[in-house]
Amino acid sequence: MPQLYIGNKNYSSWSMRPWVLLRQAGIAFDEVKVRFDSFDAGSQFKSAMGAVTPTGKVPVLVDDGLAIWDTLAIAEYIAEQHPEKHLWPQDRAARARARSIVAEMHSGFTALRSACPMNIEARLPEVGALIWRDNAGVRADVQRLVDMWGALLQEHGGPMLFGPFTIADAFYAPVCMRLATYGLPVPPQIAAYVERVQQLPGVRAWIDDALAERDFLDFEEPYRLAAQKG
Amino acid sequence: MPQLYIGNKNYSSWSMRPWVLLRQAGIAFDEVKVRFDSFDAGSQFKSAMGAVTPTGKVPVLVDDGLAIWDTLAIAEYIAEQHPEKHLWPQDRAARARARSIVAEMHSGFTALRSACPMNIEARLPEVGALIWRDNAGVRADVQRLVDMWGALLQEHGGPMLFGPFTIADAFYAPVCMRLATYGLPVPPQIAAYVERVQQLPGVRAWIDDALAERDFLDFEEPYRLAAQKG
Ligand SMILES: N[C@@H](CCC(=O)N[C@@H](CS)C(=O)NCC(=O)O)C(=O)O
Ligand SMILES: N[C@@H](CCC(=O)N[C@@H](CS)C(=O)NCC(=O)O)C(=O)O
Repeated sequence: MPQLYIGNKNYSSWSMRPWVLLRQAGIAFDEVKVRFDSFDAGSQFKSAMGAVTPTGKVPVLVDDGLAIWDTLAIAEYIAEQHPEKHLWPQDRAARARARSIVAEMHSGFTALRSACPMNIEARLPEVGALIWRDNAGVRADVQRLVDMWGALLQEHGGPMLFGPFTIADAFYAPVCMRLATYGLPVPPQIAAYVERVQQLPGVRAWIDDALAERDFLDFEEPYRLAAQKG
Repeated sequence: MPQLYIGNKNYSSWSMRPWVLLRQAGIAFDEVKVRFDSFDAGSQFKSAMGAVTPTGKVPVLVDDGLAIWDTLAIAEYIAEQHPEKHLWPQDRAARARARSIVAEMHSGFTALRSACPMNIEARLPEVGALIWRDNAGVRADVQRLVDMWGALLQEHGGPMLFGPFTIADAFYAPVCMRLATYGLPVPPQIAAYVERVQQLPGVRAWIDDALAERDFLDFEEPYRLAAQKG
């Protein structure tokens, strides 16, 4: 059984992608959680992950002794191993489009990623409103999401970006979490997609685990001094 | 015939990757060069590329009206369309490893990429020596290259990272150009790989075109006021 190394579920957006992909696709795996103590050279996280891959980051999939790192390589590997799951769209053009937007996520959306780090348990609409007012890069990133998702949902008719669930939805799932946490404004049909993603059983399972974690990490919290009550 | 949109050959490291891949693999394509005037919203580059893709960046492959953006999606598309070219390693584990290092390149090596922008015609060994002295991030990135390439060359016996030329070599070709331009110190077996990459006909053809360009762009030149003579 393959092992998936991940970080804290409340915070680790990159870990979330292959976990949700495997879970939603119904592919069995063992989860190995390596807690984020810090990312310094001497940290437990770095020494644990440094023994698994040369990059020392999560996620990593280990299959039969073979370590595969980086979300994109992991996604391609899983898709190759499970052709019957159709994790990429079956149509050649749709598949190329899906890979384009997944690669765009992989190296893009830097304003949104840096201003609005994933934090599933937090509710930060006032922080989000200030970011929205002041940060043109975040507004541009959200506009790009609205255009991208809007066009794909219209073209393929939903419920997911390419009709059924694919790797593309897994890659944008952490972005949906950010839109929710920071309450960033999007049109109704986009908000409905964000809601549908959160209702996918594979995403729901990740959210439930994240909420149960209760592991507040200062260095992942630019906007909170402590977890909210309740 | 597919069209590949690219930027200036002297500077555009992302454009270089799919161009070298296609050329080295002997796959016919039409090159569409969109000169970098600037990356501002009102630039000719941005308005030309904005008509081709939503990201407004190069490279873009247009095949039969289908626009595929981002180097990684383009590489996967080409590999799928030309299975007989074996652009990924044929062995499953080697292919997963190749995808891991290609994805690592796609979102990593940020210190090297920002301190040492690709500039094929320039020779900047003194700038490189200062960067090497002062920039620990660049030293760490180069160390990672040395470890990665060293291990792969040993495991697969060269001449390329996975034996024959693959997408992985195309992805690291612009890095080879940076090592050469800035004269960053690497062990002999790594320098020999850097040299072999520069001698690949597909890379040689790109370098020749880059040298013929003679299009000095201030905003791509943190270290020069003008092109060198000769
Ligand atoms: N490009 C990588 C990014 C992975 C990444 O940055 N992971 C973070 C956690 S979400 C990490 O491990 N950070 C530790 C570090 O930067 O040292 C991927 O797609 O897998
Ligand atoms: N992740 C993209 C990066 C593409 C990229 O950044 N291209 C640069 C030229 S090398 C560009 O078009 N920049 C224009 C801009 O940033 O507006 C890829 O892999 O294709």
